[in-house]
Amino acid sequence: MAVKIGLIGTGTVGGGCIEIIQKHKEGFKRHFGIDLELAQVCSLQRERAEEYGVADIFTDNFHDVLENPEIDVVVEVIGGTTFARTVVTEALKAGKHVVTANKALMATYGEEIMKLAAENEREIAFEASVGGGIPIIGPLKHSLIANEISSVIGIVNGTTNYMLTRMGEDGLTYDDALAEAQAKGFAEADPTADVDGLDAAAKIAILSSIAFNSRVTMADVHTEGIRSLSPVDLATAQEMGYCVKLLAIGNRTDAGIDVRVHPAMLPLDHPLATVNGVFNAIYAVGDFVGETMFFGEGAGAGAAASAVMGDVLEVVRHVQAGIKPLVGCTCTDNLPFMKIEDTVQRYYLRCKVVDRPGILAKMASAFSNHGVSVYSMIQRGADEQANTAELVYVTHSAKDSEIMAAIAEMKAMDNVLAEGEEPAVIRLAGK
Amino acid sequence: MAVKIGLIGTGTVGGGCIEIIQKHKEGFKRHFGIDLELAQVCSLQRERAEEYGVADIFTDNFHDVLENPEIDVVVEVIGGTTFARTVVTEALKAGKHVVTANKALMATYGEEIMKLAAENEREIAFEASVGGGIPIIGPLKHSLIANEISSVIGIVNGTTNYMLTRMGEDGLTYDDALAEAQAKGFAEADPTADVDGLDAAAKIAILSSIAFNSRVTMADVHTEGIRSLSPVDLATAQEMGYCVKLLAIGNRTDAGIDVRVHPAMLPLDHPLATVNGVFNAIYAVGDFVGETMFFGEGAGAGAAASAVMGDVLEVVRHVQAGIKPLVGCTCTDNLPFMKIEDTVQRYYLRCKVVDRPGILAKMASAFSNHGVSVYSMIQRGADEQANTAELVYVTHSAKDSEIMAAIAEMKAMDNVLAEGEEPAVIRLAGK
Repeated sequence: MAVKIGLIGTGTVGGGCIEIIQKHKEGFKRHFGIDLELAQVCSLQRERAEEYGVADIFTDNFHDVLENPEIDVVVEVIGGTTFARTVVTEALKAGKHVVTANKALMATYGEEIMKLAAENEREIAFEASVGGGIPIIGPLKHSLIANEISSVIGIVNGTTNYMLTRMGEDGLTYDDALAEAQAKGFAEADPTADVDGLDAAAKIAILSSIAFNSRVTMADVHTEGIRSLSPVDLATAQEMGYCVKLLAIGNRTDAGIDVRVHPAMLPLDHPLATVNGVFNAIYAVGDFVGETMFFGEGAGAGAAASAVMGDVLEVVRHVQAGIKPLVGCTCTDNLPFMKIEDTVQRYYLRCKVVDRPGILAKMASAFSNHGVSVYSMIQRGADEQANTAELVYVTHSAKDSEIMAAIAEMKAMDNVLAEGEEPAVIRLAGK
Repeated sequence: MAVKIGLIGTGTVGGGCIEIIQKHKEGFKRHFGIDLELAQVCSLQRERAEEYGVADIFTDNFHDVLENPEIDVVVEVIGGTTFARTVVTEALKAGKHVVTANKALMATYGEEIMKLAAENEREIAFEASVGGGIPIIGPLKHSLIANEISSVIGIVNGTTNYMLTRMGEDGLTYDDALAEAQAKGFAEADPTADVDGLDAAAKIAILSSIAFNSRVTMADVHTEGIRSLSPVDLATAQEMGYCVKLLAIGNRTDAGIDVRVHPAMLPLDHPLATVNGVFNAIYAVGDFVGETMFFGEGAGAGAAASAVMGDVLEVVRHVQAGIKPLVGCTCTDNLPFMKIEDTVQRYYLRCKVVDRPGILAKMASAFSNHGVSVYSMIQRGADEQANTAELVYVTHSAKDSEIMAAIAEMKAMDNVLAEGEEPAVIRLAGK
């Protein structure tokens, strides 16, 4: 007998799930012996259910789904952390298995939800919460578990990756790139979650929790967005053999786990450097497997629905076999967090200075006072009228707090930085 | 109580497995509740067991392992299709679960082995047989099953990819590239399996079987190697915006499944085009997920051992939970094969012709007599002394049999192709 599914949410992802079931239901049975039936569809938009030809199983009350004794698996594709949290927790309490695509929910209330799932001996699956259709949570929870993962780095936000690709390759300003992304439907009217790095922060919290076996929530992630990036810096990076990406970084270090989201310069020969436009990729390094990368479409109805339905099919397989959840929460360690101030990497620094003798020495002393060693310096864009010049520095590895202190010292010195100019700082990533 | 493992084979992969168990055994228990014990190690080389500190559990008789009632999981990392076949089939008959890294075995005797596993209700896992440490069989059997896969294309042989990278980027000849690969330990003394495409053929047979739910064996794969490739063609491809890779291709078409291994020109912006050196990658397209790619180290003790032990840990999880195999053979369809002659794609053709008026017209007629439309033609490398010139054609899409007929016609014409010269033909892949 078919295992019955209740779908809550009929947006793009929910619609994609309905399409997959309609198209491939028979194939699932024939190829895998997986027999499922979409038994109920819930949302506030009856017209969407009509559009997909599922009006006969429509309800606008999610309690109908949770209280339906025939339903074994609830799919939550509403998004957000308020109503969705109620749906997911109530579903687990009602003895349903839950599949969700909700990154913010899992990155904020993951511990509560995993605990509820364990208490009720139900599965909670969330492959679609990171990287759209790219299988990454599956590999991290199964194929790669023989490894200690030292690093997981993602380009996990398609909106900002599209914008940075356009800014880097075609010289668009931030505002123009954003307007274009909005016009193409890649960015929302309020782009905050994307451009300020919050979406990426939720995703790297989830990935790091799994990769390092230690709970990371969104609040633990140091998060910087792309609003302050200028095309000048992207072009300069390109000239120097780098691209600029909004990276979601998780590192396991001896001093704790270091989880952050910020723009970063990446050498052009790094596997992630070729990931352009709205594509996503997750790069992970394990002590035995070495470097791996998982690439694909990070957004879009089809890609996310592929991941949601992959989870649904796996859960149905288990329901049919009558087995209890095989993999629960794996956050068994409680690793300390490293502060962004204590991280060590190379830096790109561009600043407009007053063009007069002795400036380079003053800049050099600001660096050396904080133990920062300069790897290269290029002077460019002298403006005779304004009597300013632009200096681009790349440092050797330095502690974040020291770089920030060096910059504060530059800003405090009289007549060194050009009036009203804020230095542009970008961290380097990769080897 | 720990689930006991018997390891058969102590080569590089077997050694890697021992190291993983020694290093991470406690972590597996703490993080995943997976409790395993290496109970027996079998090979013909006692000194290897001593080297790894497992001489106390060594045997040189594999029957000791198969007849050991305490052992639940047998790991076969011997390779080859004779002795390994006996070990795997006998182990399944003896009621052991089996994990193997053996591509030739699975691509040749897969049906027999899957059937034996099903009859005995035991698991057979073989992630390490394709792409070294890259999770690809796992994703195809789990995360991606909501899709109909239309295409799976791999760079799955590190030896040839290293050679082609050196030939393409640094102009080495085939012989020099091979000698270098052998010196670095990337190629064996007898390189046949690699350079003739047999290793890649086994891997694409396995991937296609899973992706298309239809049995493909090595014998079904049209296989061409890289021996005839010249650095001239690799350089010309590069000038034209392509790279040349040994691709393992599986396509699902309305006319059947098309599975083959041959050198192919790939546009430089294709995700696979950036996969250089000994790295491997598998690119797959699904009807909902769109384009995906899985990248990593295709060879090496650590990478392959990571995949083998990933499988072992999953099987142990199932043994501990007391559940029967969840995923058996998924080759439920019996799709026809498409012949290479019937495949359609674009072609690169370089030939040395006699340099005299009328030659281009003769060449053009050979193409048009077989319905082949030319996309571009470049004349290069005129040799006044020999009175020859070199022509490089790229065609529009054409049927393989028609291209081959056109070339046969060119060869049959008097005084058109330069004496004793064989045209170089490379198929184009990608969009």
